[in-house]
Amino acid sequence: MTVDESYMDMALELAKRGMGAVNPNPLVGAVIVKDEKVIGKGWHERFGGLHAERNALADCKESTEGATIYVTLEPCCHYGKTPPCTEAILASGIRRVVIGSSDPNPLVAGKGIRILQEAGLTVETGVLKKECDALNAVFFHYIKTKRPYVVMKYAMTLDGKIATATGASKWITGEDARKNVQKDRNRYMGIMVGLGTVRADDPRLTCRIPGGRDPIRIICDTGLCTPPESNVVTTAHETKTILATACADEAKHAPYREAGCEILVVPKKEGHIDLGELMRMLGEQGIDSILLEGGGTLNFSALKQGIVQRVQAYIAPKLFGGAEAKSPVEGSGAVLPSDGWQLSDVSVRRIGADLLVEGDVKYSCLPE
Amino acid sequence: MTVDESYMDMALELAKRGMGAVNPNPLVGAVIVKDEKVIGKGWHERFGGLHAERNALADCKESTEGATIYVTLEPCCHYGKTPPCTEAILASGIRRVVIGSSDPNPLVAGKGIRILQEAGLTVETGVLKKECDALNAVFFHYIKTKRPYVVMKYAMTLDGKIATATGASKWITGEDARKNVQKDRNRYMGIMVGLGTVRADDPRLTCRIPGGRDPIRIICDTGLCTPPESNVVTTAHETKTILATACADEAKHAPYREAGCEILVVPKKEGHIDLGELMRMLGEQGIDSILLEGGGTLNFSALKQGIVQRVQAYIAPKLFGGAEAKSPVEGSGAVLPSDGWQLSDVSVRRIGADLLVEGDVKYSCLPE
Repeated sequence: MTVDESYMDMALELAKRGMGAVNPNPLVGAVIVKDEKVIGKGWHERFGGLHAERNALADCKESTEGATIYVTLEPCCHYGKTPPCTEAILASGIRRVVIGSSDPNPLVAGKGIRILQEAGLTVETGVLKKECDALNAVFFHYIKTKRPYVVMKYAMTLDGKIATATGASKWITGEDARKNVQKDRNRYMGIMVGLGTVRADDPRLTCRIPGGRDPIRIICDTGLCTPPESNVVTTAHETKTILATACADEAKHAPYREAGCEILVVPKKEGHIDLGELMRMLGEQGIDSILLEGGGTLNFSALKQGIVQRVQAYIAPKLFGGAEAKSPVEGSGAVLPSDGWQLSDVSVRRIGADLLVEGDVKYSCLPE
Repeated sequence: MTVDESYMDMALELAKRGMGAVNPNPLVGAVIVKDEKVIGKGWHERFGGLHAERNALADCKESTEGATIYVTLEPCCHYGKTPPCTEAILASGIRRVVIGSSDPNPLVAGKGIRILQEAGLTVETGVLKKECDALNAVFFHYIKTKRPYVVMKYAMTLDGKIATATGASKWITGEDARKNVQKDRNRYMGIMVGLGTVRADDPRLTCRIPGGRDPIRIICDTGLCTPPESNVVTTAHETKTILATACADEAKHAPYREAGCEILVVPKKEGHIDLGELMRMLGEQGIDSILLEGGGTLNFSALKQGIVQRVQAYIAPKLFGGAEAKSPVEGSGAVLPSDGWQLSDVSVRRIGADLLVEGDVKYSCLPE
């Protein structure tokens, strides 16, 4: 790691502190260095709050004249909720700016950089670009498509089972893996399951880490049959719950609305709700990311309709067997091996005794 | 890595050259070092041939007086097919012996070491013990149980499918992973499948690497229904093929015998052949290891009957989906998650674009 990379790495770690609090804004971290000493650190702490650069500047106890700022994302140059960060940098006397990711908006990308360069500052770009880009995969996707970034997450045994043949699934993975899922429930804005999961497990779908933020619960329920006594309905006043349904019957909506649920009426597609259209509607609400914890049927529909960006497979080092045991993706499935969904940039790591395999879904053609 | 460890590592690499040629003997490598220089290398090259120590001594072009020998397995001290290696070491003038694994036979373990020590040599033991033990997992198991070491191997997608819903399975994994399987077909003495696989894929089950040795083919066929025109039967004169069946009808055996197959009549257990008894019979024939490339039904029976020692799961970074797609272990399956088969010492590595997850099966109680 070069000196620039190690300061950028520090900025990346700071950026992560905003997880769960900045959506649909990006995660950004900044470090200000003068005479080989860190004199200021900051990150984008919460949606609507100061940007990382301004927080880092405010953190400085000494003059920033002639300093270098490391920032994970190209500084903004427009008036949004806060004035442009380029102005704050220029006013600070900083002489060198080191940037990780470029602005994902092609109309804006490079504009912040140019303003700084024209003012005579030295600007370096693309330092730890891959890591910086990965950190904001959600933001980059959302800003470009206006639709949530969907992470399909499941836990299975090494023989591909998400439950035993009798339906028992507590637990597949160990405590550490389950804690990691809780972190992701804090990180992503929404969590989505199908009616089948509500019926089988009656989950709460909340975030159980101290200080965590509950994700918005999205239940895919074509016929509007969610049991009124299920946890997601009875706690809808505390935690936002959206029932996505093809049922337009207001009389059937009423009891769910009274219980605090929001109803989204979505057109049907091949017998189920149109998930592409649902994503458009959720994106409009400002939901930038969804953790999909579906069963095999919903997972298959989500892949088929092209709404999944990333797969997270937790794999427990055990075997259940069972021709009747459920697997993570069901439905009609691919016909030929070449029809399957390929993953790219696959990573694997150990979490406790389990493995977490992750990758981005490569769609051979654009989703409909 | 210490100096001793790096020479032992060299001996381990030499030992591996015997893979596929020494069964049911152990894989052993030896390196002789004098004045910080390697003066001789050897390994156990083929069943019935010289032991690694003698090959290394024969390789020395200069005097071994005062040298050190590194050997992956405790030198033998008994008259077998060849005279004891301890005698050869004593006669060579070697002064120091560094050993990886102890002899797996508890009646013999330490005896070779004691003979060397009593003659005044310095003996170090347990250097890279874990690696040396792992290399001879087959031999250690076979010498203790007289039954083959069974490796259950399967290739699946990241959603746990070994074929698409329509039964297509060519190919799940990439070329590198498939090459690795071919190496294992050379390494292990037998290869076992069920009638279902013969019917579905009509495989040859041969080793397709140049210079490789075909494994002995074992077909589990309770009712003796293997199609006479299948590849395993029509090529049985070239490659040893065993049909394991519960059918004792000599008249039904005759055509298979004429085609070159060997018939093993095995008692029935819960409607299928008794796999534990089959393992005893195969062990008696000197078969020390089996690569189990079964479908889900045979794999489940093998686990249930406690004959599997190790699992090798090749995982392709793709998803097939399909409620009807086959999975690697089927049958009735575990009832509760805690009833599943746990793996220990799990390793994971990348082979091309695929992952290979391996582990030892932990049986909670001894198999029946």
